[in-house]
Amino acid sequence: MGINAPLLLVLDLVGTFAFALNGALTAVRAERLDIFGVITLGMFTGLGGGAIRDVLLDALPPATFIDWRYLALAATGGLIAFVLTRRLDRIAMAITVLDAVGLSVFAVLGAYKALEMGFGVLQAVIVGTVTAVGGGTIRDVMIQRVPTVLTSELYAIPALIGALCAAVAYEAGYQGTLAALAAAAVCFAIRMVGVRFDLHAPQPPGQHDD
Amino acid sequence: MGINAPLLLVLDLVGTFAFALNGALTAVRAERLDIFGVITLGMFTGLGGGAIRDVLLDALPPATFIDWRYLALAATGGLIAFVLTRRLDRIAMAITVLDAVGLSVFAVLGAYKALEMGFGVLQAVIVGTVTAVGGGTIRDVMIQRVPTVLTSELYAIPALIGALCAAVAYEAGYQGTLAALAAAAVCFAIRMVGVRFDLHAPQPPGQHDD
Amino acid sequence: MGINAPLLLVLDLVGTFAFALNGALTAVRAERLDIFGVITLGMFTGLGGGAIRDVLLDALPPATFIDWRYLALAATGGLIAFVLTRRLDRIAMAITVLDAVGLSVFAVLGAYKALEMGFGVLQAVIVGTVTAVGGGTIRDVMIQRVPTVLTSELYAIPALIGALCAAVAYEAGYQGTLAALAAAAVCFAIRMVGVRFDLHAPQPPGQHDD
Repeated sequence: MGINAPLLLVLDLVGTFAFALNGALTAVRAERLDIFGVITLGMFTGLGGGAIRDVLLDALPPATFIDWRYLALAATGGLIAFVLTRRLDRIAMAITVLDAVGLSVFAVLGAYKALEMGFGVLQAVIVGTVTAVGGGTIRDVMIQRVPTVLTSELYAIPALIGALCAAVAYEAGYQGTLAALAAAAVCFAIRMVGVRFDLHAPQPPGQHDD
Repeated sequence: MGINAPLLLVLDLVGTFAFALNGALTAVRAERLDIFGVITLGMFTGLGGGAIRDVLLDALPPATFIDWRYLALAATGGLIAFVLTRRLDRIAMAITVLDAVGLSVFAVLGAYKALEMGFGVLQAVIVGTVTAVGGGTIRDVMIQRVPTVLTSELYAIPALIGALCAAVAYEAGYQGTLAALAAAAVCFAIRMVGVRFDLHAPQPPGQHDD
Repeated sequence: MGINAPLLLVLDLVGTFAFALNGALTAVRAERLDIFGVITLGMFTGLGGGAIRDVLLDALPPATFIDWRYLALAATGGLIAFVLTRRLDRIAMAITVLDAVGLSVFAVLGAYKALEMGFGVLQAVIVGTVTAVGGGTIRDVMIQRVPTVLTSELYAIPALIGALCAAVAYEAGYQGTLAALAAAAVCFAIRMVGVRFDLHAPQPPGQHDD
């Protein structure tokens, strides 16, 4: 199962492209980068989570590094962000939705990969979450920003819940494409509700009045 | 040997917990993080050094990633830091002492792991030092701080000396728990003397008057 | 082939030393570091690119980590930068030239290593570029700078072109030392022209007037 189902593969590629596009856009707004920098940060955002996943799972070389489709889509996303920066503002919501698709698919497929390799539920949840948020974290560190995933928005939490749903379903015997899509839908729904209502994870006590 | 001795395992777990607690405390004071960010940075601080060690030694997946006790203790340390930030100030010295225990045990056990896998003394000293200071370095990079280990305090030097003592003793045939504890005690003593007298490593010439 | 040719090995070692020296000099000018920090950042600059290369290629443990000559030369470069910071300003151009040698050799040998392990041209070009610019990128992240390779100067582009030349020549059957040196010479020439005329890669449209 996992990435063998054509629908999941397509979603994984869509997610890679959306992450790269959105990641490069974020980078180009925050810092004065050249074309190499924008494409590189797009590729890091789209491929970085999967690379960390494959280090943790001892599944090197990274799957997204040896498959030219992932490399090409990530580079294309970065290039489009470089060329069309200003025009893309008009479709910001569409990009946010695609980014949420990427978050959901990465979280679920990351967890599945861990489970298929024989790791436990705890490891699968960690790996799914890392796959989903790792790329954006690397990008933020590169452009000198505290990773937004650590400070604000409901971004990592939906990924974690999606990975958890996928892992529990997998262990209960639901290992097909439908179960994966259902777990991804849970992540997607929570993320979009968070975007709509601007929800945040709790802050440490005593800091609310900063 | 190595981590098989129960006493060393307990000390390694204590060190993981102390690193996570101390690391999350440092992070929460420096940056406005949400609960996910605090726990994540606690886990990075507690587990990151061992992960880099296992990349360098080709011992993936990381040992601390597949053992749930390390994951649980690191997450618990981060959670406690999140909840009790202000109260923990009262036991700052106790946390510093526990952190020095972690530094010492990580340096020695990191060096031992390299030696047991057949690496040389030079590699063992590097790996021991990286195990001890790698987690805090990752945390500092995440919260946009130049890693303190590169700029101030006697923190990496005791780890390096502890790893060196462990490696030399190991090569001389002293490979038991007692030798490991003695090497860790050297590291611990130098670290605590550094804390007590606020010692620093030398700065580049001509910069003292900055 | 690859690193087996004595001339290429010498150039690789020279490049490691030059990267470490130049990297540590950059670090010591940007931040107040202690001796451990300066040597560490020199070693990261000299050895980091090769380490990322070996993660991507699943060739762990990193080749530069198990060969003491690389470790010793990188540490020596950092130590010299620590001791002689101010005097080295007089030979800034010589250091820039040596750094360009390192860039060229790292790019070509990185690409060759990928090809010899059976990876494709696309992967070889990525790996060559990463080998050449990865170390400086890690250093910049550590000292809280947006990696210069993402923002300015013709630095990554010559590495990419050199790796591409090497990969194309390799696939066309030119796999000897001469072909490697020719590809490295292309990278070196572009880099030095860029230094001489202060050339930069294109910036995103609409940002030129910032």
